[in-house]
Amino acid sequence: MSGETEPADESKAGTSTPPTPGTRRPGGRTARTRAAVRDAVLTGLTEHGYPGLTIEYVAEHSGVHKTTLYRRWGGVDGLVADALDLAGEDTWLPPDTGSLAGDLRALAHEVVDSFADPGAAASGSAMIAAAFQSERAAGALRAYYAERFARCEVIVARAVGRGELPVTEGAVIDAGALVRSVSAPVFFRLFITREPVDGVLADQSAAAALAAARAGAFTTG
Amino acid sequence: MSGETEPADESKAGTSTPPTPGTRRPGGRTARTRAAVRDAVLTGLTEHGYPGLTIEYVAEHSGVHKTTLYRRWGGVDGLVADALDLAGEDTWLPPDTGSLAGDLRALAHEVVDSFADPGAAASGSAMIAAAFQSERAAGALRAYYAERFARCEVIVARAVGRGELPVTEGAVIDAGALVRSVSAPVFFRLFITREPVDGVLADQSAAAALAAARAGAFTTG
Repeated sequence: MSGETEPADESKAGTSTPPTPGTRRPGGRTARTRAAVRDAVLTGLTEHGYPGLTIEYVAEHSGVHKTTLYRRWGGVDGLVADALDLAGEDTWLPPDTGSLAGDLRALAHEVVDSFADPGAAASGSAMIAAAFQSERAAGALRAYYAERFARCEVIVARAVGRGELPVTEGAVIDAGALVRSVSAPVFFRLFITREPVDGVLADQSAAAALAAARAGAFTTG
Repeated sequence: MSGETEPADESKAGTSTPPTPGTRRPGGRTARTRAAVRDAVLTGLTEHGYPGLTIEYVAEHSGVHKTTLYRRWGGVDGLVADALDLAGEDTWLPPDTGSLAGDLRALAHEVVDSFADPGAAASGSAMIAAAFQSERAAGALRAYYAERFARCEVIVARAVGRGELPVTEGAVIDAGALVRSVSAPVFFRLFITREPVDGVLADQSAAAALAAARAGAFTTG
Protein backbone atom coordinates (compact mmCIF):
# COMPACT_ATOMS: atom_id res chain seq x y z
CA MET A 1 0.00 0.00 0.00
CA SER A 2 1.52 3.31 -1.04
CA GLY A 3 0.64 6.75 -2.34
CA GLU A 4 -3.01 7.66 -2.84
CA THR A 5 -5.35 4.88 -1.76
CA GLU A 6 -8.65 6.73 -2.01
CA PRO A 7 -11.24 3.96 -1.87
CA ALA A 8 -13.90 3.63 -4.53
CA ASP A 9 -16.87 3.39 -2.19
CA GLU A 10 -16.11 6.77 -0.67
CA SER A 11 -15.71 8.69 -3.92
CA LYS A 12 -19.42 8.08 -4.47
CA ALA A 13 -20.24 10.11 -1.40
CA GLY A 14 -18.58 13.18 -2.90
CA THR A 15 -15.67 15.11 -1.45
CA SER A 16 -18.00 17.57 0.27
CA THR A 17 -19.17 14.93 2.74
CA PRO A 18 -16.14 13.14 4.15
CA PRO A 19 -17.03 9.90 5.89
CA THR A 20 -17.22 10.02 9.65
CA PRO A 21 -14.28 8.26 11.24
CA GLY A 22 -15.62 5.44 13.33
CA THR A 23 -18.41 4.51 10.96
CA ARG A 24 -18.49 0.76 10.51
CA ARG A 25 -17.76 -0.32 6.98
CA PRO A 26 -17.54 -3.76 5.45
CA GLY A 27 -14.03 -5.09 4.82
CA GLY A 28 -12.13 -4.27 1.68
CA ARG A 29 -9.91 -1.48 0.56
CA THR A 30 -11.36 1.14 2.92
CA ALA A 31 -11.09 -1.14 5.93
CA ARG A 32 -7.53 -2.10 4.97
CA THR A 33 -6.53 1.55 4.59
CA ARG A 34 -8.10 2.42 7.90
CA ALA A 35 -6.37 -0.50 9.63
CA ALA A 36 -3.02 0.45 8.11
CA VAL A 37 -3.46 4.02 9.32
CA ARG A 38 -4.53 2.78 12.75
CA ASP A 39 -1.44 0.57 12.99
CA ALA A 40 0.80 3.50 12.07
CA VAL A 41 -0.93 5.70 14.66
CA LEU A 42 -0.48 3.10 17.41
CA THR A 43 3.17 2.55 16.49
CA GLY A 44 3.76 6.29 16.43
CA LEU A 45 2.04 6.82 19.77
CA THR A 46 4.02 4.01 21.32
CA GLU A 47 7.33 5.28 19.94
CA HIS A 48 6.89 9.03 20.31
CA GLY A 49 3.77 9.69 22.40
CA TYR A 50 1.04 12.09 21.36
CA PRO A 51 3.27 15.22 21.38
CA GLY A 52 5.66 13.53 18.93
CA LEU A 53 3.04 12.03 16.59
CA THR A 54 2.94 13.74 13.20
CA ILE A 55 0.93 13.37 10.00
CA GLU A 56 4.24 12.79 8.22
CA TYR A 57 5.01 9.82 10.46
CA VAL A 58 1.59 8.26 9.87
CA ALA A 59 1.84 8.86 6.10
CA GLU A 60 5.26 7.25 5.93
CA HIS A 61 4.32 4.23 8.05
CA SER A 62 0.88 3.59 6.54
CA GLY A 63 1.68 4.34 2.91
CA VAL A 64 -1.35 6.65 2.79
CA HIS A 65 -0.72 10.10 1.35
CA LYS A 66 -0.65 13.10 3.68
CA THR A 67 -3.39 14.91 1.79
CA THR A 68 -5.66 11.87 2.15
CA LEU A 69 -4.94 11.71 5.86
CA TYR A 70 -5.79 15.39 6.28
CA ARG A 71 -8.94 15.12 4.18
CA ARG A 72 -10.30 11.99 5.84
CA TRP A 73 -9.10 12.38 9.41
CA GLY A 74 -8.63 16.12 9.75
CA GLY A 75 -5.37 15.90 11.66
CA VAL A 76 -3.46 14.05 14.35
CA ASP A 77 -6.25 14.20 16.91
CA GLY A 78 -8.72 12.79 14.39
CA LEU A 79 -6.30 9.97 13.63
CA VAL A 80 -5.96 9.09 17.32
CA ALA A 81 -9.72 9.29 17.84
CA ASP A 82 -10.33 6.97 14.89
CA ALA A 83 -7.76 4.47 16.14
CA LEU A 84 -9.74 4.36 19.38
CA ASP A 85 -13.03 4.03 17.52
CA LEU A 86 -11.56 1.13 15.59
CA ALA A 87 -10.30 -0.49 18.81
CA GLY A 88 -13.90 -0.44 20.04
CA GLU A 89 -15.12 -2.30 16.95
CA ASP A 90 -14.16 -5.73 18.21
CA THR A 91 -16.19 -8.70 19.34
CA TRP A 92 -14.91 -8.74 22.90
CA LEU A 93 -17.35 -10.05 25.49
CA PRO A 94 -16.91 -10.03 29.26
CA PRO A 95 -16.14 -13.28 31.10
CA ASP A 96 -19.03 -15.70 31.68
CA THR A 97 -17.88 -18.12 34.37
CA GLY A 98 -21.25 -18.95 35.88
CA SER A 99 -20.96 -16.85 39.02
CA LEU A 100 -20.67 -13.15 39.81
CA ALA A 101 -17.56 -13.77 41.90
CA GLY A 102 -15.93 -15.65 39.04
CA ASP A 103 -16.89 -13.06 36.42
CA LEU A 104 -15.57 -10.11 38.44
CA ARG A 105 -12.36 -11.94 39.24
CA ALA A 106 -11.82 -12.89 35.59
CA LEU A 107 -12.55 -9.31 34.52
CA ALA A 108 -10.03 -7.90 37.00
CA HIS A 109 -7.37 -10.35 35.84
CA GLU A 110 -8.06 -9.46 32.20
CA VAL A 111 -7.35 -5.81 32.96
CA VAL A 112 -4.15 -6.57 34.86
CA ASP A 113 -2.99 -9.04 32.19
CA SER A 114 -3.68 -6.60 29.34
CA PHE A 115 -1.25 -4.12 30.85
CA ALA A 116 1.33 -6.83 31.52
CA ASP A 117 1.68 -7.17 27.72
CA PRO A 118 4.21 -4.47 26.75
CA GLY A 119 2.70 -3.76 23.32
CA ALA A 120 -0.88 -3.46 24.51
CA ALA A 121 0.24 -1.51 27.56
CA ALA A 122 2.16 1.01 25.45
CA SER A 123 -0.68 1.74 23.05
CA GLY A 124 -3.29 1.77 25.82
CA SER A 125 -1.16 4.12 27.88
CA ALA A 126 -0.54 6.34 24.84
CA MET A 127 -4.29 6.63 24.23
CA ILE A 128 -4.91 7.63 27.83
CA ALA A 129 -2.05 10.14 27.61
CA ALA A 130 -3.36 11.58 24.32
CA ALA A 131 -6.67 12.37 26.02
CA PHE A 132 -4.85 14.86 28.25
CA GLN A 133 -3.73 16.79 25.18
CA SER A 134 -6.63 16.53 22.78
CA GLU A 135 -10.32 17.07 23.46
CA ARG A 136 -11.13 14.90 20.48
CA ALA A 137 -9.00 12.03 21.79
CA ALA A 138 -10.63 12.48 25.22
CA GLY A 139 -14.06 12.21 23.61
CA ALA A 140 -13.05 9.06 21.74
CA LEU A 141 -11.64 7.55 24.95
CA ARG A 142 -14.87 8.38 26.78
CA ALA A 143 -16.94 6.73 24.04
CA TYR A 144 -14.62 3.71 23.98
CA TYR A 145 -14.93 3.03 27.71
CA ALA A 146 -18.65 3.83 27.84
CA GLU A 147 -19.26 1.18 25.20
CA ARG A 148 -16.83 -1.27 26.78
CA PHE A 149 -18.41 -1.02 30.22
CA ALA A 150 -21.91 -1.21 28.73
CA ARG A 151 -20.87 -4.62 27.41
CA CYS A 152 -19.77 -5.58 30.95
CA GLU A 153 -23.15 -4.85 32.48
CA VAL A 154 -24.45 -8.24 31.35
CA ILE A 155 -22.34 -9.69 34.17
CA VAL A 156 -24.60 -7.93 36.67
CA ALA A 157 -27.81 -8.81 34.82
CA ARG A 158 -26.84 -12.49 34.85
CA ALA A 159 -26.00 -12.33 38.57
CA VAL A 160 -29.39 -10.80 39.33
CA GLY A 161 -31.03 -13.49 37.19
CA ARG A 162 -29.24 -16.17 39.25
CA GLY A 163 -30.36 -14.50 42.47
CA GLU A 164 -26.79 -13.65 43.48
CA LEU A 165 -27.56 -10.03 44.25
CA PRO A 166 -30.48 -8.93 46.40
CA VAL A 167 -32.79 -6.54 44.54
CA THR A 168 -35.72 -5.31 46.55
CA GLU A 169 -38.91 -3.88 45.04
CA GLY A 170 -38.24 -0.57 43.30
CA ALA A 171 -34.45 -0.73 43.83
CA VAL A 172 -31.97 -0.51 40.97
CA ILE A 173 -28.40 -1.78 40.87
CA ASP A 174 -25.96 0.67 39.26
CA ALA A 175 -24.37 -1.99 37.08
CA GLY A 176 -22.09 0.52 35.37
CA ALA A 177 -20.62 1.61 38.69
CA LEU A 178 -20.22 -1.98 39.85
CA VAL A 179 -18.22 -3.10 36.82
CA ARG A 180 -16.15 0.11 36.82
CA SER A 181 -15.26 -0.49 40.47
CA VAL A 182 -13.43 -3.68 39.48
CA SER A 183 -11.14 -1.89 37.02
CA ALA A 184 -10.73 1.42 38.85
CA PRO A 185 -8.13 0.30 41.45
CA VAL A 186 -5.98 -1.21 38.69
CA PHE A 187 -6.03 1.86 36.42
CA PHE A 188 -5.59 4.10 39.48
CA ARG A 189 -2.30 2.40 40.35
CA LEU A 190 -1.08 2.17 36.75
CA PHE A 191 -1.70 5.78 35.74
CA ILE A 192 -2.22 7.91 38.84
CA THR A 193 -0.25 6.55 41.79
CA ARG A 194 2.17 4.81 39.39
CA GLU A 195 2.37 1.65 41.44
CA PRO A 196 2.78 -1.94 40.21
CA VAL A 197 -0.30 -4.11 39.68
CA ASP A 198 -0.56 -7.88 39.93
CA GLY A 199 -2.90 -10.81 40.34
CA VAL A 200 -3.21 -10.18 44.07
CA LEU A 201 -4.58 -6.71 43.36
CA ALA A 202 -6.95 -8.18 40.76
CA ASP A 203 -8.33 -10.65 43.32
CA GLN A 204 -8.64 -7.92 45.93
CA SER A 205 -10.43 -5.51 43.57
CA ALA A 206 -12.88 -8.21 42.51
CA ALA A 207 -13.52 -9.25 46.11
CA ALA A 208 -14.11 -5.64 47.16
CA ALA A 209 -16.54 -5.02 44.29
CA LEU A 210 -18.42 -8.23 45.09
CA ALA A 211 -18.69 -7.45 48.80
CA ALA A 212 -19.82 -3.89 48.07
CA ALA A 213 -22.44 -5.13 45.60
CA ARG A 214 -23.75 -7.74 48.04
CA ALA A 215 -23.99 -5.08 50.76
CA GLY A 216 -26.04 -2.88 48.44
CA ALA A 217 -23.43 -0.13 47.94
CA PHE A 218 -24.33 0.09 44.25
CA THR A 219 -28.08 -0.17 44.83
CA THR A 220 -30.27 2.92 44.64
CA GLY A 221 -33.95 3.60 45.13
CA MET B 1 12.49 38.86 42.25
CA SER B 2 14.52 39.04 39.05
CA GLY B 3 17.78 37.89 37.52
CA GLU B 4 20.13 35.75 39.59
CA THR B 5 18.70 34.85 42.97
CA GLU B 6 21.31 32.35 44.06
CA PRO B 7 20.68 31.91 47.78
CA ALA B 8 23.50 32.45 50.27
CA ASP B 9 22.96 29.23 52.21
CA GLU B 10 23.54 27.12 49.14
CA SER B 11 26.76 28.76 48.01
CA LYS B 12 28.33 27.27 51.15
CA ALA B 13 27.64 23.79 49.86
CA GLY B 14 29.72 24.45 46.76
CA THR B 15 28.53 24.21 43.19
CA SER B 16 29.73 20.62 42.89
CA THR B 17 27.01 19.36 45.24
CA PRO B 18 23.69 20.84 44.18
CA PRO B 19 20.98 20.46 46.80
CA THR B 20 18.49 17.69 46.25
CA PRO B 21 15.17 19.06 45.11
CA GLY B 22 12.59 18.10 47.67
CA THR B 23 14.87 18.55 50.65
CA ARG B 24 13.02 20.44 53.34
CA ARG B 25 14.53 23.80 54.10
CA PRO B 26 13.49 26.46 56.54
CA GLY B 27 11.79 29.52 55.07
CA GLY B 28 13.75 32.40 53.64
CA ARG B 29 15.28 33.22 50.30
CA THR B 30 15.74 29.63 49.18
CA ALA B 31 12.20 28.70 50.07
CA ARG B 32 10.88 31.81 48.35
CA THR B 33 12.86 31.08 45.20
CA ARG B 34 11.66 27.51 45.16
CA ALA B 35 8.04 28.57 45.67
CA ALA B 36 8.33 31.17 42.88
CA VAL B 37 9.73 28.51 40.55
CA ARG B 38 6.99 26.07 41.61
CA ASP B 39 4.30 28.68 40.90
CA ALA B 40 5.76 29.34 37.45
CA VAL B 41 5.90 25.59 36.74
CA LEU B 42 2.25 25.11 37.77
CA THR B 43 1.12 28.09 35.71
CA GLY B 44 3.09 26.84 32.72
CA LEU B 45 1.73 23.31 33.04
CA THR B 46 -1.80 24.62 33.33
CA GLU B 47 -1.41 26.93 30.34
CA HIS B 48 0.67 24.80 28.00
CA GLY B 49 0.82 21.27 29.40
CA TYR B 50 4.05 19.34 29.87
CA PRO B 51 4.97 19.26 26.15
CA GLY B 52 4.76 23.07 26.01
CA LEU B 53 6.58 23.81 29.27
CA THR B 54 10.03 25.32 28.71
CA ILE B 55 12.88 26.50 30.90
CA GLU B 56 12.49 29.92 29.23
CA TYR B 57 8.87 30.12 30.38
CA VAL B 58 9.76 29.22 33.98
CA ALA B 59 12.68 31.69 33.99
CA GLU B 60 10.48 34.50 32.71
CA HIS B 61 7.61 33.83 35.11
CA SER B 62 9.69 33.12 38.22
CA GLY B 63 12.37 35.77 37.75
CA VAL B 64 15.02 33.08 38.30
CA HIS B 65 17.78 32.93 35.70
CA LYS B 66 17.83 30.06 33.21
CA THR B 67 21.34 28.97 34.22
CA THR B 68 20.23 28.75 37.85
CA LEU B 69 17.21 26.68 36.86
CA TYR B 70 19.39 24.28 34.86
CA ARG B 71 21.98 24.02 37.62
CA ARG B 72 19.53 23.46 40.49
CA TRP B 73 16.75 21.52 38.78
CA GLY B 74 18.51 19.94 35.81
CA GLY B 75 15.69 20.61 33.36
CA VAL B 76 11.96 20.68 32.83
CA ASP B 77 11.37 17.23 34.30
CA GLY B 78 13.31 18.15 37.43
CA LEU B 79 11.23 21.30 37.78
CA VAL B 80 7.99 19.35 37.54
CA ALA B 81 9.25 16.73 39.99
CA ASP B 82 10.24 19.41 42.49
CA ALA B 83 6.87 21.15 42.20
CA LEU B 84 5.30 17.81 43.14
CA ASP B 85 7.75 17.32 46.00
CA LEU B 86 6.84 20.77 47.27
CA ALA B 87 3.12 20.00 46.96
CA GLY B 88 3.72 17.04 49.28
CA GLU B 89 5.31 19.26 51.92
CA ASP B 90 2.04 20.47 53.38
CA THR B 91 0.33 19.80 56.68
CA TRP B 92 -2.75 18.12 55.22
CA LEU B 93 -4.35 15.50 57.41
CA PRO B 94 -7.19 13.17 56.48
CA PRO B 95 -10.70 13.77 57.87
CA ASP B 96 -11.35 12.74 61.49
CA THR B 97 -15.11 12.62 61.89
CA GLY B 98 -15.32 10.00 64.62
CA SER B 99 -16.44 7.10 62.44
CA LEU B 100 -14.95 5.09 59.57
CA ALA B 101 -18.05 5.74 57.45
CA GLY B 102 -17.78 9.47 58.05
CA ASP B 103 -14.04 9.58 57.38
CA LEU B 104 -14.28 7.65 54.10
CA ARG B 105 -17.19 9.78 52.95
CA ALA B 106 -15.38 13.02 53.81
CA LEU B 107 -12.25 11.76 52.04
CA ALA B 108 -14.19 10.91 48.89
CA HIS B 109 -15.87 14.31 48.87
CA GLU B 110 -12.49 16.03 49.34
CA VAL B 111 -11.19 14.31 46.21
CA VAL B 112 -14.27 15.20 44.16
CA ASP B 113 -14.28 18.78 45.45
CA SER B 114 -10.57 19.27 44.74
CA PHE B 115 -11.16 18.56 41.06
CA ALA B 116 -14.25 20.80 40.99
CA ASP B 117 -11.90 23.75 41.58
CA PRO B 118 -10.64 24.71 38.09
CA GLY B 119 -7.20 25.88 39.23
CA ALA B 120 -6.44 22.85 41.38
CA ALA B 121 -7.92 20.56 38.75
CA ALA B 122 -5.73 22.02 36.01
CA SER B 123 -2.46 21.70 37.91
CA GLY B 124 -3.37 18.27 39.28
CA SER B 125 -4.31 17.06 35.85
CA ALA B 126 -1.12 18.53 34.38
CA MET B 127 1.00 16.65 36.93
CA ILE B 128 -0.73 13.38 36.09
CA ALA B 129 -0.26 14.11 32.39
CA ALA B 130 3.42 14.97 32.85
CA ALA B 131 4.01 11.53 34.38
CA PHE B 132 3.15 9.97 31.01
CA GLN B 133 5.99 11.88 29.39
CA SER B 134 8.71 11.96 32.02
CA GLU B 135 10.02 9.12 34.15
CA ARG B 136 11.20 11.65 36.70
CA ALA B 137 7.75 13.24 36.94
CA ALA B 138 6.25 9.74 37.24
CA GLY B 139 8.60 8.97 40.11
CA ALA B 140 7.68 12.21 41.87
CA LEU B 141 3.97 11.49 41.38
CA ARG B 142 4.45 7.98 42.80
CA ALA B 143 6.25 9.40 45.86
CA TYR B 144 3.61 12.10 46.30
CA TYR B 145 0.71 9.65 46.37
CA ALA B 146 2.58 7.06 48.44
CA GLU B 147 3.14 9.67 51.12
CA ARG B 148 -0.38 11.09 50.82
CA PHE B 149 -2.03 7.68 51.21
CA ALA B 150 0.32 6.77 54.05
CA ARG B 151 -1.16 9.77 55.88
CA CYS B 152 -4.66 8.40 55.17
CA GLU B 153 -3.96 5.06 56.82
CA VAL B 154 -4.60 6.56 60.25
CA ILE B 155 -8.29 6.48 59.30
CA VAL B 156 -8.14 2.69 59.28
CA ALA B 157 -6.06 2.48 62.46
CA ARG B 158 -8.60 4.64 64.31
CA ALA B 159 -11.47 2.50 62.98
CA VAL B 160 -9.76 -0.67 64.21
CA GLY B 161 -9.17 1.02 67.55
CA ARG B 162 -12.88 1.82 67.80
CA GLY B 163 -13.75 -1.77 66.94
CA GLU B 164 -15.40 -0.76 63.66
CA LEU B 165 -13.54 -3.33 61.59
CA PRO B 166 -13.25 -6.98 62.55
CA VAL B 167 -9.63 -8.09 62.85
CA THR B 168 -9.16 -11.72 63.74
CA GLU B 169 -6.00 -13.18 65.26
CA GLY B 170 -3.11 -13.01 62.79
CA ALA B 171 -5.09 -11.10 60.16
CA VAL B 172 -3.92 -7.80 58.72
CA ILE B 173 -6.01 -5.10 57.06
CA ASP B 174 -4.43 -3.65 53.92
CA ALA B 175 -5.07 -0.05 54.97
CA GLY B 176 -3.31 1.34 51.90
CA ALA B 177 -5.62 -0.57 49.57
CA LEU B 178 -8.69 0.44 51.57
CA VAL B 179 -7.99 4.18 51.43
CA ARG B 180 -6.95 3.97 47.75
CA SER B 181 -10.24 2.24 46.94
CA VAL B 182 -12.13 5.38 47.99
CA SER B 183 -10.26 7.62 45.54
CA ALA B 184 -9.81 5.15 42.69
CA PRO B 185 -13.34 5.37 41.19
CA VAL B 186 -13.12 9.17 41.16
CA PHE B 187 -9.71 9.34 39.44
CA PHE B 188 -10.75 6.53 37.11
CA ARG B 189 -13.67 8.58 35.80
CA LEU B 190 -11.74 11.85 35.67
CA PHE B 191 -8.68 10.62 33.80
CA ILE B 192 -9.43 7.25 32.21
CA THR B 193 -13.11 6.96 31.26
CA ARG B 194 -13.39 10.78 31.13
CA GLU B 195 -16.77 10.87 32.84
CA PRO B 196 -18.14 13.53 35.20
CA VAL B 197 -17.78 13.04 38.96
CA ASP B 198 -20.06 14.38 41.69
CA GLY B 199 -21.12 14.02 45.30
CA VAL B 200 -23.27 11.00 44.48
CA LEU B 201 -20.20 9.17 43.18
CA ALA B 202 -18.25 10.23 46.29
CA ASP B 203 -20.94 8.75 48.55
CA GLN B 204 -21.09 5.58 46.48
CA SER B 205 -17.30 5.11 46.48
CA ALA B 206 -17.12 5.60 50.23
CA ALA B 207 -20.03 3.20 50.83
CA ALA B 208 -18.44 0.56 48.58
CA ALA B 209 -15.08 0.85 50.34
CA LEU B 210 -16.74 0.61 53.75
CA ALA B 211 -18.82 -2.43 52.80
CA ALA B 212 -15.79 -4.15 51.28
CA ALA B 213 -13.71 -3.42 54.39
CA ARG B 214 -16.41 -4.73 56.72
CA ALA B 215 -16.71 -7.90 54.63
CA GLY B 216 -12.96 -8.45 54.93
CA ALA B 217 -12.07 -7.79 51.28
CA PHE B 218 -8.95 -5.87 52.36
CA THR B 219 -8.01 -8.34 55.10
CA THR B 220 -5.21 -10.83 54.55
CA GLY B 221 -3.71 -13.62 56.60
